[in-house]
Amino acid sequence: MPARIIALLTDFGHHDPFVAMMKGVMLGINPALQLVDISHEIAPQRCREAAIVLSVTLPFFPLQTIFVVVVDPGVGGTRRAIIVETAEHLFVAPDNGVLGPVLDQAEVRCVVHATEAKFFRRPISRTFHGRDVFAPLAAWLSHGVEVREMGPAIDDYTRLELPRPSARGDGGLAGEVLYQDRFGNLMTNISEAYLMESWGPPPWRGIRASIETAVIRGFDSYYAQRSAQQLGMIINSWGLLEIFANGGSAAQVTGAVEGSPVRICRGDT
Amino acid sequence: MPARIIALLTDFGHHDPFVAMMKGVMLGINPALQLVDISHEIAPQRCREAAIVLSVTLPFFPLQTIFVVVVDPGVGGTRRAIIVETAEHLFVAPDNGVLGPVLDQAEVRCVVHATEAKFFRRPISRTFHGRDVFAPLAAWLSHGVEVREMGPAIDDYTRLELPRPSARGDGGLAGEVLYQDRFGNLMTNISEAYLMESWGPPPWRGIRASIETAVIRGFDSYYAQRSAQQLGMIINSWGLLEIFANGGSAAQVTGAVEGSPVRICRGDT
Amino acid sequence: MPARIIALLTDFGHHDPFVAMMKGVMLGINPALQLVDISHEIAPQRCREAAIVLSVTLPFFPLQTIFVVVVDPGVGGTRRAIIVETAEHLFVAPDNGVLGPVLDQAEVRCVVHATEAKFFRRPISRTFHGRDVFAPLAAWLSHGVEVREMGPAIDDYTRLELPRPSARGDGGLAGEVLYQDRFGNLMTNISEAYLMESWGPPPWRGIRASIETAVIRGFDSYYAQRSAQQLGMIINSWGLLEIFANGGSAAQVTGAVEGSPVRICRGDT
Repeated sequence: MPARIIALLTDFGHHDPFVAMMKGVMLGINPALQLVDISHEIAPQRCREAAIVLSVTLPFFPLQTIFVVVVDPGVGGTRRAIIVETAEHLFVAPDNGVLGPVLDQAEVRCVVHATEAKFFRRPISRTFHGRDVFAPLAAWLSHGVEVREMGPAIDDYTRLELPRPSARGDGGLAGEVLYQDRFGNLMTNISEAYLMESWGPPPWRGIRASIETAVIRGFDSYYAQRSAQQLGMIINSWGLLEIFANGGSAAQVTGAVEGSPVRICRGDT
Repeated sequence: MPARIIALLTDFGHHDPFVAMMKGVMLGINPALQLVDISHEIAPQRCREAAIVLSVTLPFFPLQTIFVVVVDPGVGGTRRAIIVETAEHLFVAPDNGVLGPVLDQAEVRCVVHATEAKFFRRPISRTFHGRDVFAPLAAWLSHGVEVREMGPAIDDYTRLELPRPSARGDGGLAGEVLYQDRFGNLMTNISEAYLMESWGPPPWRGIRASIETAVIRGFDSYYAQRSAQQLGMIINSWGLLEIFANGGSAAQVTGAVEGSPVRICRGDT
Repeated sequence: MPARIIALLTDFGHHDPFVAMMKGVMLGINPALQLVDISHEIAPQRCREAAIVLSVTLPFFPLQTIFVVVVDPGVGGTRRAIIVETAEHLFVAPDNGVLGPVLDQAEVRCVVHATEAKFFRRPISRTFHGRDVFAPLAAWLSHGVEVREMGPAIDDYTRLELPRPSARGDGGLAGEVLYQDRFGNLMTNISEAYLMESWGPPPWRGIRASIETAVIRGFDSYYAQRSAQQLGMIINSWGLLEIFANGGSAAQVTGAVEGSPVRICRGDT
């Protein structure tokens, strides 16, 4: 049997030994794990960013991957630890919305409030449930412990909806910048699927995007279709409309940041 | 038999391929390793920082983990390569104090000066013993080679003691900031164990901490007990008294840095 | 059979989940992989830097390692995906020069233009062939698929030669800074082998190096031979002449950067 995959997403960074402590605890419970880091550079305590990164990443992992998400400003307080089982994967996280898009979009089988202390590390610290609660829960899941053995099912978990695009009166679409990557590419919340729902199948004649003071005309098939530093737009690898600058940073060129409005229209509208 | 764990702690950063070279060498000797990164972001050549990170991390790793620590300003010179066997783990490092707290606190079985060149990679470079000496030693240990086969036992290894807290005449305790994490939390060298030794079991009525110009009153059970950005103190996940700012950075709020003095007193003292 | 090693070198950084997506895809095809990160901090789209890092790193990996290099400014356009088989290793990369030094120096068995779409992930995105093309190709190679099954052999692949040192009329040697590491050490393109070819075996009496306005006299056997912050030169762990400042940064002390000229002479020349 191949090693079970546990994929980790945190805001712990790469300097401190927090992630290593979690891995040590997990390997102590199940030495035959395949541990994969999704990112540990989520901005401190930014649950929304973690939720976005998780939702775009999980489709590329094998079935039955166990995802552990620890962005946990409420550690030690009253927020609950939850475990989510979907048709495809398992998730362990604080109940603060970081699993929001999963709970919204996936085929959820059950959501459990993890209360069974025998699956925690003892003693439980006040400040690091990643190590003492979430890591051991994930490792025991990888051993085959059933989700329902870990606590009672709940349905009042915390929701976190990502901003959705909307249709404008003039036939255009309004969205925003959801995420900026290392290259300065601006991923918007306008998906290819939403464009097709709104406008039918492509081509969408005369399409143009407005972001800050820039206007971009026409879809690109690849970055290098534009001249150096020129802005373009493309359906990216996450299925989203992305504003880029060929060989440069669209964030720098446009001045846009996460949350900046993006408007798309077509034809003569 | 599950894969043997080798845990790596260096000051090599994430840009250069130094860590990868060490992993390549180790996997060439033992392909069935579970490699775990503790941190590679120790500040260049800061042995003390590596010693602290190692000592707080190792309790969370399974028995028989092999720790390789490479913070090595004296590479190529006369400093020795040492291997330490404790009741629980194995350690490979330069003899420059990075294993200091381990040698001070663990049940040490033997310390060996690694001289047996057959366990080194050849030729040995002048500038990278992490790759040519420490990595292969660790990989051969993972294969079951005995520590004592690798060189003569020594007892004149380099010590490095971390700063200890002390009692003040007025019944208070004096310590310092040992480590600052990504979130700006300030870990002090005052442990829960030391507090209990000094003052007996809690509660410690009227407890307050002074750090730079700030005074913090009362212990917290979790971060969110304070209002946003407010300073608090807590026994943290490393068993240490920690100064925090809820949702913010205690380092920024107080202006304290590693080494800054911290004073704790209680009652009417 | 031990797990096959796939070593990854990209410019994706550690914040975004791009590397994790590649790992998810590879583990979906072959769950028993040993995944090793070489670096993900190559400066965005700097093929030359990736080529240097790859060429110095690969000698330390076991035979039959599969290297995946994704620095890919031309993604989605006409640049080809190639697979290179040498006597020792396998390589998957865009045909943009990142494998240049490998193709120049290794015993190349074949170079293939990867066209067999059954080894790609579907659908192929426009912006992330690391995930949709290179990662699955590597994973299928790890499964034992033959390179030649993946497309036609080619010999018109893109070359990228690193700058070579040259002899000067006065008996000296002229090279340049190839790479700067985390510590500020300056790796030059003057190798020990080139020095021996040019001047015969050491010692090279009166050797001195000029870089920016600094002149360094004499070779060092280890960093700490110089006093604190003093410049020195050494044959480093990559077999290259390296300018260092003991306990400090030679880059800062000299003001040199990648590409800065370095001149070496000896005796009375």
